[in-house]
Amino acid sequence: MNYGMIRYVLFRLLRVIGWLLFLPLIVALVYKEYDSALSFLILAAFCGIAGTVGGHFLPKSRIIYAKEGFAITAVAWIGMSAMGALPFVITGTIPNFVDAMFETVSGFTTTGGSILTSVDGIEKSVQFWRTFTHWIGGMGVLVFLLAVVPMADGYSMHLMRAESPGPVVGKIVPKVKDTAKILYLIYFGITVLETLCLWASGLSFYEAMTITFSTVGTGGFSVTNSGIGGYSTLSQAIIIVFMALCGVNFTVYYFLIHGKPKEAFAIDEVKYYFGTIILASSLIAIVNYRAGVLESAGMCFHHSLFAVTSIMTTTGFGTLDFDQWPSFSRVLLMALACVGACAGSTGGGFKFSRAIIVIRNARNELNFLVHPKAVKRVYMDGHTVAGTTVKSVSAYLGLYVITFLVSTLLVSLDNFDFQTTVTSVIATLNNIGPGLGKVGPMGNYSEFSYFSKIVLMFDMLAGRLELLPIFIILKPKTWKQKL
Amino acid sequence: MNYGMIRYVLFRLLRVIGWLLFLPLIVALVYKEYDSALSFLILAAFCGIAGTVGGHFLPKSRIIYAKEGFAITAVAWIGMSAMGALPFVITGTIPNFVDAMFETVSGFTTTGGSILTSVDGIEKSVQFWRTFTHWIGGMGVLVFLLAVVPMADGYSMHLMRAESPGPVVGKIVPKVKDTAKILYLIYFGITVLETLCLWASGLSFYEAMTITFSTVGTGGFSVTNSGIGGYSTLSQAIIIVFMALCGVNFTVYYFLIHGKPKEAFAIDEVKYYFGTIILASSLIAIVNYRAGVLESAGMCFHHSLFAVTSIMTTTGFGTLDFDQWPSFSRVLLMALACVGACAGSTGGGFKFSRAIIVIRNARNELNFLVHPKAVKRVYMDGHTVAGTTVKSVSAYLGLYVITFLVSTLLVSLDNFDFQTTVTSVIATLNNIGPGLGKVGPMGNYSEFSYFSKIVLMFDMLAGRLELLPIFIILKPKTWKQKL
Repeated sequence: MNYGMIRYVLFRLLRVIGWLLFLPLIVALVYKEYDSALSFLILAAFCGIAGTVGGHFLPKSRIIYAKEGFAITAVAWIGMSAMGALPFVITGTIPNFVDAMFETVSGFTTTGGSILTSVDGIEKSVQFWRTFTHWIGGMGVLVFLLAVVPMADGYSMHLMRAESPGPVVGKIVPKVKDTAKILYLIYFGITVLETLCLWASGLSFYEAMTITFSTVGTGGFSVTNSGIGGYSTLSQAIIIVFMALCGVNFTVYYFLIHGKPKEAFAIDEVKYYFGTIILASSLIAIVNYRAGVLESAGMCFHHSLFAVTSIMTTTGFGTLDFDQWPSFSRVLLMALACVGACAGSTGGGFKFSRAIIVIRNARNELNFLVHPKAVKRVYMDGHTVAGTTVKSVSAYLGLYVITFLVSTLLVSLDNFDFQTTVTSVIATLNNIGPGLGKVGPMGNYSEFSYFSKIVLMFDMLAGRLELLPIFIILKPKTWKQKL
Repeated sequence: MNYGMIRYVLFRLLRVIGWLLFLPLIVALVYKEYDSALSFLILAAFCGIAGTVGGHFLPKSRIIYAKEGFAITAVAWIGMSAMGALPFVITGTIPNFVDAMFETVSGFTTTGGSILTSVDGIEKSVQFWRTFTHWIGGMGVLVFLLAVVPMADGYSMHLMRAESPGPVVGKIVPKVKDTAKILYLIYFGITVLETLCLWASGLSFYEAMTITFSTVGTGGFSVTNSGIGGYSTLSQAIIIVFMALCGVNFTVYYFLIHGKPKEAFAIDEVKYYFGTIILASSLIAIVNYRAGVLESAGMCFHHSLFAVTSIMTTTGFGTLDFDQWPSFSRVLLMALACVGACAGSTGGGFKFSRAIIVIRNARNELNFLVHPKAVKRVYMDGHTVAGTTVKSVSAYLGLYVITFLVSTLLVSLDNFDFQTTVTSVIATLNNIGPGLGKVGPMGNYSEFSYFSKIVLMFDMLAGRLELLPIFIILKPKTWKQKL
């Protein structure tokens, strides 16, 4: 294990967080929240100085392998969450550190599940920081680091691989640094676009910006108790569009920008992703309409589409309390939650591409019985998926199911009802936010014990980093071996 | 597709069912239930004559491949269930055919979930047939057929493979016919032993026999409304022992009979199986005791052990209403339900050996990141598991998860609560019987719609035959191709 490199990346990251903390500082100054401004200033200064000093000396060896890449990523996310929780504690918004950490992990992992029973009345700068964690976590802070810190390309790949979602690494262009820059440029562009659209639709600039952070990061924190339900249908429609866009593999936008629509639309998972949104929304709309959830068929479709997009992209915004909907709608939403968004997007869950590989692999197994001489290959996007990828995806499914079962068991010690217990794990492991029952769209995570909160934090990190990084740091072997 | 062979096996099977129907006929005569006796006689005669005539002519080609093996098995089980439902309909016990079919599928697949709201007062011969279906389905009727019908060994293997549970085929001795005979001899021995034990413990001979059928088949139908809870602690303890024994890979008994205890105890899954029973029972006993479920610590352990053994072996007997237990106990029971019993046993579920392969494969994936040069092999019972087996198990997990999600979605159309919806699928897909909520130990499946009942029947068959046979008959390609 290359400890020098871990130290180096962590301190570099600290410095980046120092810079990022200037943004809520500015917001605090604008809204004359001087106490909070001082808190953000002290934290920013500390991060900046400590980061600069600690990250000044290059490590002896800058070689990192897969193991280091995954371990650095996991440690970085935990450290970043601990650091990011301090503003909540210092400003007194969430005095308890475990709760503040839960809120921050939920923020960075773009889960959006909250321990707060009310968000009205929280200072604007703190609210800004709370939603900004979604923006940072959405595309990934290490990807950002890769875009700005000089690092040998062959090695930085491992960092990108560990932080980017999906079964295969999403390098758009040959160089990791350039890929990282392109991803952040697209991300930034979408952010500006949505902010402007929401502002134009009637939201205040502050609300437009914070809700945009929550949308594009597919997070789900809102800044008022009434949430998205309090906005106009037009604003909600804009949010639907941007949620859907951010659940798409970002490679698609790269292709579109470079005038390659054919390549963009040849990606299987994007087709299935949009197809599923339309199909599921229609089914839920029909079932809800028949059950009399809403009188207007149009609004019934609007809210169904909102819920499906919100849950599938793992954003977790809510316009209506879907926990009051018929059983079919609720079960379908929870099933979609597990599938999640596309690989290479800011969304969470098992990912569409993995689901496609699992389904096609299972179909192959059946075909093999009918045609024993047929070659067992899994195809995607017109190409054969490498055998190692299929194997990894299968192992991933196993690890995912095991994590789900064990977490559910641990959380069940809180003795909540079956629905709350099961869906709290679904909602955190897939980085959605709301589940059903006590953690439904109108509920929150405040009633859970510290033990369960820690388990759910683990699930959020495991879900965002796609299991392997977070499990690898639990293996003693990872730390024992020398480079 | 070798249609001739399908015809041949099905008619042979019909004849076997004809013979088996003589047993409830005898019971009917003993208890002077002459109307029922006549019904059983007519059915037995019909099956016997039709089976003899239809199965008289050998098909042109007796070659069957994997595809035929799986298809025959699936068709045979559906046909057998339709046939086995007739006694319920004709005697008027369950006049509705869909309900009678549900009860019979539940019987043959050793699920034990019932649509009957009361079993007291049902004629003894009909009760006998109801529990006897568990006994027939437990070891498998085609395995029985293989033991008595002459068939080329290389081909009959495919039938055995399709009906026997587990990731690899459990041939104990080189010849399939001999393996089938050995399995049935052990099964018969255990049956006689338990009947005698239960009889000695105070049950009537009739009850001892019927409860034994339900136990050794790991089914779960009982013959009184009070169920197993109405028997003495000694009788319950005997049932615990035999449930546990029947969830074990039967190869173990073969080794033990032949004086090879070392080989018997070298089987990994058997160790984990008993370890899990002890560990889970202890955990549930502690949680239940602390929650004040029972005042006596000893009885608390007794009932926890009963519930864990009953659920893990997928029998589904109940002494107490575990749906009233703390959340942890209920969630743990449902998680164990999904894992199930050992391969090569009469129990259902995902199977311990598959779970071991999934866990070790996931662990390999992690190890591979730490040691990229390490060879990825999965070991079990001291040997390397073939790569194709690991792949099949992975595909099986995928198919299992997909079946679970789709079934839950379809059943949710009945608009029951989340707990009932989810656990009804867990309970049928894993052939357990009781779930939680409406389908809890004190509940039943009578309230479900016909549509849901059909979905759950599909799940029971898919669970018992381990998915592939039941999916293969849904593929049009299976039927189109010539041999």
